[in-house]
Amino acid sequence: MKISARNAVKGTVKQVHPGAVNTEVVIEIASGVEVVSIITKASAESLGIAEGKEVYAVIKSSDVMVAVD
Amino acid sequence: MKISARNAVKGTVKQVHPGAVNTEVVIEIASGVEVVSIITKASAESLGIAEGKEVYAVIKSSDVMVAVD
Amino acid sequence: MKISARNAVKGTVKQVHPGAVNTEVVIEIASGVEVVSIITKASAESLGIAEGKEVYAVIKSSDVMVAVD
Amino acid sequence: MKISARNAVKGTVKQVHPGAVNTEVVIEIASGVEVVSIITKASAESLGIAEGKEVYAVIKSSDVMVAVD
Amino acid sequence: MKISARNAVKGTVKQVHPGAVNTEVVIEIASGVEVVSIITKASAESLGIAEGKEVYAVIKSSDVMVAVD
Amino acid sequence: MKISARNAVKGTVKQVHPGAVNTEVVIEIASGVEVVSIITKASAESLGIAEGKEVYAVIKSSDVMVAVD
Repeated sequence: MKISARNAVKGTVKQVHPGAVNTEVVIEIASGVEVVSIITKASAESLGIAEGKEVYAVIKSSDVMVAVD
Repeated sequence: MKISARNAVKGTVKQVHPGAVNTEVVIEIASGVEVVSIITKASAESLGIAEGKEVYAVIKSSDVMVAVD
Repeated sequence: MKISARNAVKGTVKQVHPGAVNTEVVIEIASGVEVVSIITKASAESLGIAEGKEVYAVIKSSDVMVAVD
Repeated sequence: MKISARNAVKGTVKQVHPGAVNTEVVIEIASGVEVVSIITKASAESLGIAEGKEVYAVIKSSDVMVAVD
Repeated sequence: MKISARNAVKGTVKQVHPGAVNTEVVIEIASGVEVVSIITKASAESLGIAEGKEVYAVIKSSDVMVAVD
Repeated sequence: MKISARNAVKGTVKQVHPGAVNTEVVIEIASGVEVVSIITKASAESLGIAEGKEVYAVIKSSDVMVAVD
């Protein structure tokens, strides 16, 4: 499946924190660069998310804000 | 200003494509890893977005989806 | 690729309206039921979106609001 | 009230799963076609969401991604 | 229609800037407090958005970030 | 830090409701005008969110819908 979201950054799952409804997934996308994702617990289980798994962080370009110091 | 969005990834602006209303900003967040952002043209101008500028890609954790092959 | 977004509804592209930056795509997901999507023009071209094409409308569950009369 | 979100798809609530803060609502929008929505528990209660209730799934067009096989 | 989005703040349209696809709407929600909205031009026309019109700014609670100095 | 989100409305925290993963924050942005925000508990703690604190409600313009009666 190919999707219209512009960003699909390859990474490795570093941590998984399951809650009641949602699961927090920490993905290392480059050495020392991590992004935090919150997805539903049902999705995390269905995708087999676990530490060490290779995944993509998928982000729509309109969900990427830009900040400057 | 400190914000509740969990992800603020440091990077460098590689390309800026201004449209009529929105501007597309390509940010290199690690060697060879780029994310595309679409912000309003007004914001891009107000922030002084230009090639080479150091910026942060700011993303809410609930806007980061996870995909697997 | 399998994604964490909970909704991937199969449908057929009915109309494509390309703009300068974004493209509006009308997808029929059931007889007489259409959803409108706005994606970047670059994505629409990269995915080969055209009338009659079979696609999925992919929507995060937290982006589905509920309304009552 | 009429809203700017482009998609308001009529459907029937099939399942309601209340959590601590959020409630998952499964809406059948056509025979065999369901969408999953996550709204706050407070909203679900205030709207009287229950199995069998007629509701609308309301989705902004920019929140509808498109995927192809 | 009653919607699950938690915030529906009453206001008055101060400015309307139509673009090719999107329209920017400036809404005064309290004396001297304005919020900027971008909706599709089709929606703006369908809702009859014009200066002086009484409207609601509708925002999901998960789309409200919090920042501190 | 200056961010591309167009709306940063000053306000005062009126209520804080921490959940397991998320925290609900009620912000008064003008006399009698409140907005509800849901952020992660980790963010709320990291920002020191508490009743009486001065904060900004930060909202992307594309996340502000418009409704009319």
